[in-house]
Amino acid sequence: MTIGSHLKETDIDHLTRIVGRERLSRGESVRFLHSHDESFHKPCLPEVVLWPRSTDEVSRIVAHAFQQRIPVTPWGAGSSLEGNPIPVSGGIVLDLQEMNRVLAVRPEDFQVDVEAGVVYKDLNRILEAEGLFFPPDPGAAATVGGMIGNNASGIRSVKYGATRDYVMRLTAVLSDGQVIQTGSRSRKCSSGYDLCRLLTGAEGTLGIVTEATLKLMGLPAAFMAVRATFPSVDHATRAVFEIMRSGVTPGAMEFLDTDIVGVLNRDRGLSLEESPTLLMEFNGYSERGLEDEMLFVSEICRDNGCLLLDRGIGPAERKRLWEIRHLTHESIRRAHPGLKSLSMDVAVPLSRYSQMVAHIKEIVADLTAYIFGHAGDGNIHVVVMDDPENEERWARVEAAHSRVVSSALSFEGTCTGEHGIGLGKKQFMAREHGESLETMKKIKALLDPRGILNPGKMFP
Amino acid sequence: MTIGSHLKETDIDHLTRIVGRERLSRGESVRFLHSHDESFHKPCLPEVVLWPRSTDEVSRIVAHAFQQRIPVTPWGAGSSLEGNPIPVSGGIVLDLQEMNRVLAVRPEDFQVDVEAGVVYKDLNRILEAEGLFFPPDPGAAATVGGMIGNNASGIRSVKYGATRDYVMRLTAVLSDGQVIQTGSRSRKCSSGYDLCRLLTGAEGTLGIVTEATLKLMGLPAAFMAVRATFPSVDHATRAVFEIMRSGVTPGAMEFLDTDIVGVLNRDRGLSLEESPTLLMEFNGYSERGLEDEMLFVSEICRDNGCLLLDRGIGPAERKRLWEIRHLTHESIRRAHPGLKSLSMDVAVPLSRYSQMVAHIKEIVADLTAYIFGHAGDGNIHVVVMDDPENEERWARVEAAHSRVVSSALSFEGTCTGEHGIGLGKKQFMAREHGESLETMKKIKALLDPRGILNPGKMFP
Repeated sequence: MTIGSHLKETDIDHLTRIVGRERLSRGESVRFLHSHDESFHKPCLPEVVLWPRSTDEVSRIVAHAFQQRIPVTPWGAGSSLEGNPIPVSGGIVLDLQEMNRVLAVRPEDFQVDVEAGVVYKDLNRILEAEGLFFPPDPGAAATVGGMIGNNASGIRSVKYGATRDYVMRLTAVLSDGQVIQTGSRSRKCSSGYDLCRLLTGAEGTLGIVTEATLKLMGLPAAFMAVRATFPSVDHATRAVFEIMRSGVTPGAMEFLDTDIVGVLNRDRGLSLEESPTLLMEFNGYSERGLEDEMLFVSEICRDNGCLLLDRGIGPAERKRLWEIRHLTHESIRRAHPGLKSLSMDVAVPLSRYSQMVAHIKEIVADLTAYIFGHAGDGNIHVVVMDDPENEERWARVEAAHSRVVSSALSFEGTCTGEHGIGLGKKQFMAREHGESLETMKKIKALLDPRGILNPGKMFP
Repeated sequence: MTIGSHLKETDIDHLTRIVGRERLSRGESVRFLHSHDESFHKPCLPEVVLWPRSTDEVSRIVAHAFQQRIPVTPWGAGSSLEGNPIPVSGGIVLDLQEMNRVLAVRPEDFQVDVEAGVVYKDLNRILEAEGLFFPPDPGAAATVGGMIGNNASGIRSVKYGATRDYVMRLTAVLSDGQVIQTGSRSRKCSSGYDLCRLLTGAEGTLGIVTEATLKLMGLPAAFMAVRATFPSVDHATRAVFEIMRSGVTPGAMEFLDTDIVGVLNRDRGLSLEESPTLLMEFNGYSERGLEDEMLFVSEICRDNGCLLLDRGIGPAERKRLWEIRHLTHESIRRAHPGLKSLSMDVAVPLSRYSQMVAHIKEIVADLTAYIFGHAGDGNIHVVVMDDPENEERWARVEAAHSRVVSSALSFEGTCTGEHGIGLGKKQFMAREHGESLETMKKIKALLDPRGILNPGKMFP
């Protein structure tokens, strides 16, 4: 008897022998939970969900899948926004949440060894005791494995970079089940091809990352948080450019358009001024140094017509000012019950940021759209709320998406600053990468010759 | 008639049609100049040297080489230390020094577009006017293309990272002559496989980089330079660890062993204290902030028995303190006329730095060896001066090298922090990379199926 389209009873028996009965499920509700991420993309049920507990188990599962040509989709927290972990070809979902051990904290080397299923927020709670942290901060309850898959970043990336910049060593299971370790514990390394960074951002299509050594940073000693409002989007985005151009390095530099501040006020019972807003953070070694930076930044804001400058020093003030940013996505969703969100994620060179935001505002003028972003990185998110079941309306949403991406590419930007390609951006790969897409496809065919690893993703 | 073993007269005719007579040479002296780098490795003459002036010319040359199975070795400044550009199989040397245009400085985006033959020191002179710089600083007159090939780094990497961290976009010619562009001008990008970083550090074995967009940093406004001497190597290296562990980020953190200070004194007419020495730099936004850091660092140095602390603020003092470091390699060579140098380049996690240096001192005790390094990165160089023609002596040098690398690998470090693999480190690839070496070989075979790109390098 065949289950779904790939797995036979003999496969289930074999997989059960690897993980045991209690870490294999064919139950409807479990399969449903692993059929969708946080995006609007259509759910697809896997045929079976497995929870391996070791690299060796993953290796044995994948070796079997290779032999039997069964699709394998790795699963972190399911918090992706582009359908990255949806098992569109069915087969096996490999849920790594039971591989969530912090294997070794090495404060003396600013490193930590983790399994791929560790949630980064949990990791940072553990690291705090050592005065250390893993900077990439995508906001959701993402796992480290998912972050590596998508090369995740977030509000801290303007200063600290993306996940790619923190991956020192990886253990990965290749498509035939072979286990490789790649990278080095050394801060510097010029030895051989950079397989760590080839696997980072590959969304599990080239291998399944099971363990990682991550570089850590020292928690900054001093903080200063600032909320600044502006009379227009153009004033706000020009201030972003001038601050970044000045060489100051904010620890975060976020833009929120007026509508979002309104949604936040209503959803959270706040009374923030409803104007284009910048949320900034500065952090460093001493408050004296930060004050110098802050004076400088205030001046730039004032020169750009800043209406209000709310600043605070220290952890409590930081928390107050940042709370609103972390809830943006949730508050927008709650304001539109029954609708789904399409989350755009373009990024452009900083000098084009103002133009790009202005252009987006025109493109999405007729839609229910919210614009915000990691401004200091040139990253812009547009969350459009609509109904994917309404074909005509959703076609307009997707047409707007396509126009926004085209515009970002014409500014020499990217279709995805941090969410990855998944399903939602596949259509833009050829436009963005041109001839080099062929090289990517060749690498995919080389490392996954049977096409079993997260099939249907990344490539058009 | 056959020239060398690969090129026929018809090939020369074809290549002449691409670059013209004046940019093709078969002259003995030109070939000799392109037969060796700065290492002890045995020179090998190429059959012909070409100086292309555009990506299109490189593409046409490589397409012909592909068709005729002629080896092509790209050439930057010839300043490598591992034989990386030596044309061991003869064939064509592609000297990129005429592709040395700075195509566009984009200060508003902290980016520059360059051709691969630009010398990074020339580039930084141009960028200075904009208050910007390209941080990786390998010391020699390296070209950007060579730096990308070797993922070069140097004294600034402790704060700013390696070349890999600054490559945003690349134009590369693949082994069949196809031209690809990969990467993005966006600071953030999660789109597709990271081919930029696959090509960076690949030493021209996967493709020939002809153009690059590099990320730039703002020149720091304030500097503080420090020279500290210690009663023993162990005191000095422990101070390094404690400073780095404290979370302070020096702009440079260099270690020089006693013998080197002696060589520098004699070669440069200096009168520095001949003890294990740290050279440090701190740079940042304001001198006030730096003073706080400096007080802290001074305390750590004193706690570790520091004998002397010579510090200075501002560009002139910085120049005075750093001049000695830049001349180290040259001064060592001048102290031993007639001998060649083998330059070791291991790097280990910081917590193992003291042990590693102590261990190296034992291993090289009977050799003419100088120990220094980019201590803040865990990178240790040992320059051994000896005569490669004296087989018995050179065997001892190589045995010591092998022991030093084994020791670094047992500390979970790397055989090369910054010089790359070239010829000199090939023998350590299997030990360092284990199973993942097979994946690297597969990628090489995929992207260079005829093995014409810098053959004989990287792989054992």
